[in-house]
Amino acid sequence: MELNGVTIDDTYAEAFPTWVSRVIITAVTEEWAYKAAVEATGFATSAIGCPCEAGIEMFLSGDETPDGRPGVAVLFCAGKKKLKEQVVERLAECVLTSPTTAVFDGLPEAEERIAVKLHFFGDGYEYQKEVGGRKCWVIPIMNGEYVGEEDFGIVKGVAGGNFFVMGENQMAALMGAQAAVDAIAGVCGVITSFPGGIVASGSKVGSKKYKFMPASTNEQYCPTLREKVAETKIPAGIAAVYEIVIDGIDEDAVKEAMAAGIAAAVKVPGVKYISAGNFGGNLGPFKIDLADIL
Amino acid sequence: MELNGVTIDDTYAEAFPTWVSRVIITAVTEEWAYKAAVEATGFATSAIGCPCEAGIEMFLSGDETPDGRPGVAVLFCAGKKKLKEQVVERLAECVLTSPTTAVFDGLPEAEERIAVKLHFFGDGYEYQKEVGGRKCWVIPIMNGEYVGEEDFGIVKGVAGGNFFVMGENQMAALMGAQAAVDAIAGVCGVITSFPGGIVASGSKVGSKKYKFMPASTNEQYCPTLREKVAETKIPAGIAAVYEIVIDGIDEDAVKEAMAAGIAAAVKVPGVKYISAGNFGGNLGPFKIDLADIL
Amino acid sequence: MELNGVTIDDTYAEAFPTWVSRVIITAVTEEWAYKAAVEATGFATSAIGCPCEAGIEMFLSGDETPDGRPGVAVLFCAGKKKLKEQVVERLAECVLTSPTTAVFDGLPEAEERIAVKLHFFGDGYEYQKEVGGRKCWVIPIMNGEYVGEEDFGIVKGVAGGNFFVMGENQMAALMGAQAAVDAIAGVCGVITSFPGGIVASGSKVGSKKYKFMPASTNEQYCPTLREKVAETKIPAGIAAVYEIVIDGIDEDAVKEAMAAGIAAAVKVPGVKYISAGNFGGNLGPFKIDLADIL
Amino acid sequence: MELNGVTIDDTYAEAFPTWVSRVIITAVTEEWAYKAAVEATGFATSAIGCPCEAGIEMFLSGDETPDGRPGVAVLFCAGKKKLKEQVVERLAECVLTSPTTAVFDGLPEAEERIAVKLHFFGDGYEYQKEVGGRKCWVIPIMNGEYVGEEDFGIVKGVAGGNFFVMGENQMAALMGAQAAVDAIAGVCGVITSFPGGIVASGSKVGSKKYKFMPASTNEQYCPTLREKVAETKIPAGIAAVYEIVIDGIDEDAVKEAMAAGIAAAVKVPGVKYISAGNFGGNLGPFKIDLADIL
Repeated sequence: MELNGVTIDDTYAEAFPTWVSRVIITAVTEEWAYKAAVEATGFATSAIGCPCEAGIEMFLSGDETPDGRPGVAVLFCAGKKKLKEQVVERLAECVLTSPTTAVFDGLPEAEERIAVKLHFFGDGYEYQKEVGGRKCWVIPIMNGEYVGEEDFGIVKGVAGGNFFVMGENQMAALMGAQAAVDAIAGVCGVITSFPGGIVASGSKVGSKKYKFMPASTNEQYCPTLREKVAETKIPAGIAAVYEIVIDGIDEDAVKEAMAAGIAAAVKVPGVKYISAGNFGGNLGPFKIDLADIL
Repeated sequence: MELNGVTIDDTYAEAFPTWVSRVIITAVTEEWAYKAAVEATGFATSAIGCPCEAGIEMFLSGDETPDGRPGVAVLFCAGKKKLKEQVVERLAECVLTSPTTAVFDGLPEAEERIAVKLHFFGDGYEYQKEVGGRKCWVIPIMNGEYVGEEDFGIVKGVAGGNFFVMGENQMAALMGAQAAVDAIAGVCGVITSFPGGIVASGSKVGSKKYKFMPASTNEQYCPTLREKVAETKIPAGIAAVYEIVIDGIDEDAVKEAMAAGIAAAVKVPGVKYISAGNFGGNLGPFKIDLADIL
Repeated sequence: MELNGVTIDDTYAEAFPTWVSRVIITAVTEEWAYKAAVEATGFATSAIGCPCEAGIEMFLSGDETPDGRPGVAVLFCAGKKKLKEQVVERLAECVLTSPTTAVFDGLPEAEERIAVKLHFFGDGYEYQKEVGGRKCWVIPIMNGEYVGEEDFGIVKGVAGGNFFVMGENQMAALMGAQAAVDAIAGVCGVITSFPGGIVASGSKVGSKKYKFMPASTNEQYCPTLREKVAETKIPAGIAAVYEIVIDGIDEDAVKEAMAAGIAAAVKVPGVKYISAGNFGGNLGPFKIDLADIL
Repeated sequence: MELNGVTIDDTYAEAFPTWVSRVIITAVTEEWAYKAAVEATGFATSAIGCPCEAGIEMFLSGDETPDGRPGVAVLFCAGKKKLKEQVVERLAECVLTSPTTAVFDGLPEAEERIAVKLHFFGDGYEYQKEVGGRKCWVIPIMNGEYVGEEDFGIVKGVAGGNFFVMGENQMAALMGAQAAVDAIAGVCGVITSFPGGIVASGSKVGSKKYKFMPASTNEQYCPTLREKVAETKIPAGIAAVYEIVIDGIDEDAVKEAMAAGIAAAVKVPGVKYISAGNFGGNLGPFKIDLADIL
């Protein structure tokens, strides 16, 4: 299959279940909500080495948030126990500490709930208040009062939706990946948790040489090893590969993001080939076929 | 004491020793080095709840980096054991995965060293190479080759240098704090690890009401509790307080940052009072007197 | 009338007709479309001293643009003859010169049209091509080929929609104005052409003292002159005023922007009073009553 | 000659004299100084079609500005008469109108001076005041008081310093150009006035086909015309060219910027060839040989 002259590999992305929390951070201006969101979702690229996966889902205008202020929606993804722990820690350390912020649940319809009890920080000076129909705790702090919901919905979402952008040289692949990330930013319900949304170093499970390594470079996708690795997945003429990894609140959102990202990447000059990553289909319950979504 | 009409409290900041690593991240453009640095230094506001404290120290031009590309210097601060673990994890998950990055030691003169062995990720395909006089490992990855030093200097630095910006209302205090952070960004050897460099919610050790809490709101610095708390530290006419917390490679750098930050904050209309935080002088070995540095 | 505890003056904004062109600039990534748009809409705050008024209206995703790439919609506002001249010059100097750009008409339904003939720049090497259903000219340039429509719709819009954000001090007023601009950025069909969307220095027509001046400071709105000017419009307790000036493709868009901006501004602590500017109602055909739109 | 494996053409850049003014814009924070600077230097890419050439030269910390606040230095370049007119208009419309700004002369040593009399805007309410050793006018405005010097130095500088970045494909050339612009941003005394600092469409004087055109595409530098144009300057294997055009306060600054930009560009993968533009050496008095500066 071809799209805009770019070959689309006849393959699928294999993805996995994850628990997802959506937190709405508001602040006096969009910029301050954004700064808190960046800090709260940092060091959260991959569940392999980071405590969770997290990223900015979308910006919200005042008429889309409970307190009528500009906001940013972020997604946190992890196993259920880890998820609660991480949401607590990241809101406590990175949002409660951030100028003018308030925090609201972004999944009010979800049946499963986690408790994020920051109000103990108030040491007895805290009190309850309704804001935009939400039951919140108000905690006196240095810059005035912090307002936050403490009951957050979580849903079973999808982690590891992905595709590869392959280019005739590194800069073409990089700009293709960037265009993909731009497009995915406009899709609701998903994040791309890696730096700038892009993965430069894909990994395989385990290591052939160093048995203590839980993961190591995926030599089949390394362009510089193309001549040295028997089962290389690098087509002729490809000098660089970037992977876009997508986590989302459900499979449809991940599919939409993959489609939007690929449609954008193939418009970038020098992008030559799109593929996707899977493990033979035995590990993850989600198999998203590139041909189906495009 | 007054500066630009703003009262400077007759007090001192109490600060603590910490181990510090400086990592230089380079990339094809400044923007890509910055994106990796942001991810690598996220979720790192306070050692109380985050795995370490971290932030961007400064931008470097190509003639200041070992590989001649634009770069960003970041500082990681923690106890010695935690520091090594965090530098390894954050470089592995947030920089090695980031487009076009390379990584170099930013404290080559330091006697104490930590090993940051990412090359095992290469699964035997890695090799050694000298770049700009530095012994590096080259790891084949999807976007080409990752280059990184693996021997990093660490020094005993200073954590928790601080001052308070107090304003007649919240926006005056916030813009004063922002001006301070802008000024500190130009000082070498320091970071301000909180979101946007600013702390909105100061804490005291422990809690009077909730014994299980390791820290809780510092009611003495809460403007809304001014009438309710006997020993309030909030002067009359103050409606909001922000704290700037500074970590640095040595006491001089922290002092210079505090001086630059305060000088900037007092120029912002509506900033009325500058103070600093301490614990009576019994906890931290560093006592930085505001009158001395201004 | 009060909104969120902030007094809304019982007055109206007086606005004027203007011709408006909407140009869609696309590029390889959103960032490059944005850079071209910033340059093309600079030096365009006020028709009094600038050649036109211009600004960024909104960002467009790939599925909203004729060539499927990310884009930015900009509005240019001026008298009809000046408008054509300015669109030609600004596209020629600031967009055709900008990396990877293409340009499309953003008002295809408009009956009035202007010709923007950049293809002569091709010196005979140019050719015609249909892109996304639009008749375009393709011009060979250094970075490849520039693609552009040359027939642009123009509509009779509204210039000078406005409101004032008044604060108890300068930073409160500034952040209130910033919050207003953030909110207006989400409204289609409008721009705020001043730097950062905000006007710090309002003017009156002519000058009492310097007869050669076409405009001079509006002393009635100067907080520092409150005690010196008989007919001051500055309420007690106000230390700073910012004006948000809005141009739009029609009156409804301007009204919606005013409403969104005011709703956002009144949520900022220290904002105390909202008013609007008019000239007694004799100059502009549009009178937008604050009470009506809120 | 080769640099980092990239061929450096044996040629020179031909540049021209221009008058230059440096204006220092300060504001409450760096961000607000920057916003004013962006507006004031917009629509100023090329003197051919814009009223002047202008751009941001550098950021200044509080200890580098007369009023101790963060600032941005901008350069305006034009013929002497046009320069004065443009500095007046752009400061009046884009800086005086911008929140919290003040303006200072950035060339106090220059013998040639221009008067930029904005104080008439004060309509008699203005007054004089010394700020940081500078004689300034204070004008009451809506957000408080505007402070500005009115006597600006101008020097005979250099316009049109330039080099070409040629890549094996468009994205490689673009990222090479971006890296060059990043590097040049660190050089004092220069600006790159085009959008994002980069020119995508070079021109020749006049037109062969359309006699009314003062300039048209330079077909010798169009990669898509390589096979059609006899005297093409496009080497084999080049798919895209970007030009970096540099204006500066003197020839040394322009040379330093060219050297820094080229050194950065050749480090970007896929950049294959560096050249420079001239008109045979008969037009401009400055001839900057690439071999000399590298």
